[in-house]
Amino acid sequence: MTDDILLTTRDDRGVHTLTLNNPKAFNVLSEAMMVAFQQALEAVAADSAARAVVIAAEGRAFCAGHDLKEMKARPELAYYQALFATCSKLMLSIRKLEVPVIARVHGLATAAGCQLVAQCDLAVAVKEASFGVNGIDVGLFCATPSVALSRNMLPKQAMEMLLTGDFISADEAKARGLVNRVVTADALDAEVAALVDRILGKPREALAMGKALFYRQLETSMESAYQLAGQTMACNMVHEVAQEGVQAFIEKRAPRW
Amino acid sequence: MTDDILLTTRDDRGVHTLTLNNPKAFNVLSEAMMVAFQQALEAVAADSAARAVVIAAEGRAFCAGHDLKEMKARPELAYYQALFATCSKLMLSIRKLEVPVIARVHGLATAAGCQLVAQCDLAVAVKEASFGVNGIDVGLFCATPSVALSRNMLPKQAMEMLLTGDFISADEAKARGLVNRVVTADALDAEVAALVDRILGKPREALAMGKALFYRQLETSMESAYQLAGQTMACNMVHEVAQEGVQAFIEKRAPRW
Amino acid sequence: MTDDILLTTRDDRGVHTLTLNNPKAFNVLSEAMMVAFQQALEAVAADSAARAVVIAAEGRAFCAGHDLKEMKARPELAYYQALFATCSKLMLSIRKLEVPVIARVHGLATAAGCQLVAQCDLAVAVKEASFGVNGIDVGLFCATPSVALSRNMLPKQAMEMLLTGDFISADEAKARGLVNRVVTADALDAEVAALVDRILGKPREALAMGKALFYRQLETSMESAYQLAGQTMACNMVHEVAQEGVQAFIEKRAPRW
Repeated sequence: MTDDILLTTRDDRGVHTLTLNNPKAFNVLSEAMMVAFQQALEAVAADSAARAVVIAAEGRAFCAGHDLKEMKARPELAYYQALFATCSKLMLSIRKLEVPVIARVHGLATAAGCQLVAQCDLAVAVKEASFGVNGIDVGLFCATPSVALSRNMLPKQAMEMLLTGDFISADEAKARGLVNRVVTADALDAEVAALVDRILGKPREALAMGKALFYRQLETSMESAYQLAGQTMACNMVHEVAQEGVQAFIEKRAPRW
Repeated sequence: MTDDILLTTRDDRGVHTLTLNNPKAFNVLSEAMMVAFQQALEAVAADSAARAVVIAAEGRAFCAGHDLKEMKARPELAYYQALFATCSKLMLSIRKLEVPVIARVHGLATAAGCQLVAQCDLAVAVKEASFGVNGIDVGLFCATPSVALSRNMLPKQAMEMLLTGDFISADEAKARGLVNRVVTADALDAEVAALVDRILGKPREALAMGKALFYRQLETSMESAYQLAGQTMACNMVHEVAQEGVQAFIEKRAPRW
Repeated sequence: MTDDILLTTRDDRGVHTLTLNNPKAFNVLSEAMMVAFQQALEAVAADSAARAVVIAAEGRAFCAGHDLKEMKARPELAYYQALFATCSKLMLSIRKLEVPVIARVHGLATAAGCQLVAQCDLAVAVKEASFGVNGIDVGLFCATPSVALSRNMLPKQAMEMLLTGDFISADEAKARGLVNRVVTADALDAEVAALVDRILGKPREALAMGKALFYRQLETSMESAYQLAGQTMACNMVHEVAQEGVQAFIEKRAPRW
């Protein structure tokens, strides 16, 4: 079943592609999807040779958020608490992965689907993609999506989307900081591949130290942030990857990693 | 007197409009204005059928900040401490209101007037409006305005305005995140009305839970934020407004709120 | 030696210009450079008549970050810890100075050089300048630069630069919030001078209170921020510079500071 609802591939370079594969339901984050997704992320975490993750989706939409039918069938507080805890754990797992995670957004990203884009480290979108946190249209404020969204754009911009349910275009999403690059649909795979290639050219260990530090320091004061970052950078510098990289720089040759 | 310096209306939908009405003094936040303003916000807070607040102003300027003449007449530390505490309480009251607050900015917004725009949840401005925190021109750094301003745009952008006293245009304010929409003067009321209508189409309870959560989660770590947001979203989901909204979505009909 | 690697001037208005002067090495932050730089900042801090600092550089590049050759020669954790602590102290000294610090960026700003731009209160760059945190190209994630960078632009924008090592143009740096103004090379000095002149027109005491408050309040909750800011503003208002400034405003004359 996991193979059905979520397609996972890993190339010989360590690039994992996780493809949401429930196109008829606009790839909603149903319980089954979240279980499969969490397992796939844990498989990446367990793969010490993993280098990057691409999150993609099949069909017309990227991801339409939670599965409202499934939710409606269980009108119990404890059920919803568990459901959102499951989803939040999933989102935090993306952040905790040692390798960069790139959203490949080929269509609509709604509610928790928009949150998923926001939660990734990087995002590439097609011009036709659109982004919204429109739970409020069914009377459900996108509270958990707001966590990731409000850390990817300025507060009035996020608030307008949350209060009105209105969508923004990919270009607007880029201008606000929600996505990194916007391309035509036929250029999407090449653009994602180019970004992956840039990352594969860097040593895994340095990226892992850096990603963890980046998010940790963001949540502290500048003085604490510098202490954490200085320690990370010293540890990175004594590591063989930096020693070799710097030596290669001095000798004006490519590093041998 | 309160009726004079601040005009308040409430339509039968629960939309409160508070209009600063001291145009000769550019609607400064004098003691009298702040007393009236605080009372009006408390009236909104007490109105369980309130749905939205629009903050508007009469005359050429939107709001020129504090009343410098009044301040000069009382050169006492304790007086100033009380004055800024009063103003900060006013600003925090806007944030604490359960309903969305929209600034309708038809002209100049200066110092605490610019802070007022920043403090609102949303802001619509005319093209000719301009925004500045120019207390520094009279030797008074806009410290309290900087609290709201620095949470609405990036720090170097805010710092330049605070150090130089220079103004930015409405278009620049939008690009930076300080306002949501910029329109021509003759389209201002329609644009504000459209935004209000969008909000009125959503259930009050969901907006209230969402607004409170949004600002609270912004001030915590991402892990804590997800815990708070998950709890809010579960509570929202068991509420009848979401149960009805989701049911209506499933049945492809409009919700009956 | 200090005179060689870092040129320092102070004009009779209190404007200090610190010019990185190791153009052959692209003005890297070598140990010697950091010692000289720290001393120069401490000299500014000790100058009670200082009004502003301009950080400039000689040669084609603004600053290329740390001195990789020097670092490679001492592959010891304790050395690197001390090195990054020295650099972080330098960066924090810029923030702690009472006077505004402006980066005058005439060329490439790389790694800790980009951090230096981010750390300044304001930055003016030429159109041809470019900005990158490309330590990752030698296997060294720009952890300490990420502290300043991630406080000057939105996280996905910073993350892309950190993970890929890619550079951005001056125009892009302005759009993201990293620099305040972009000009042609022949207009750079005039633009920096205009910004300095704006600052010199304001009283030192108000700017000092304001700068300290600005960064302090950014790191607290909005409620705490308002308490701190209200206190700062009351202290500023009882100060003679604000009393005179406000009196001058009332009398429609220039303040006599």
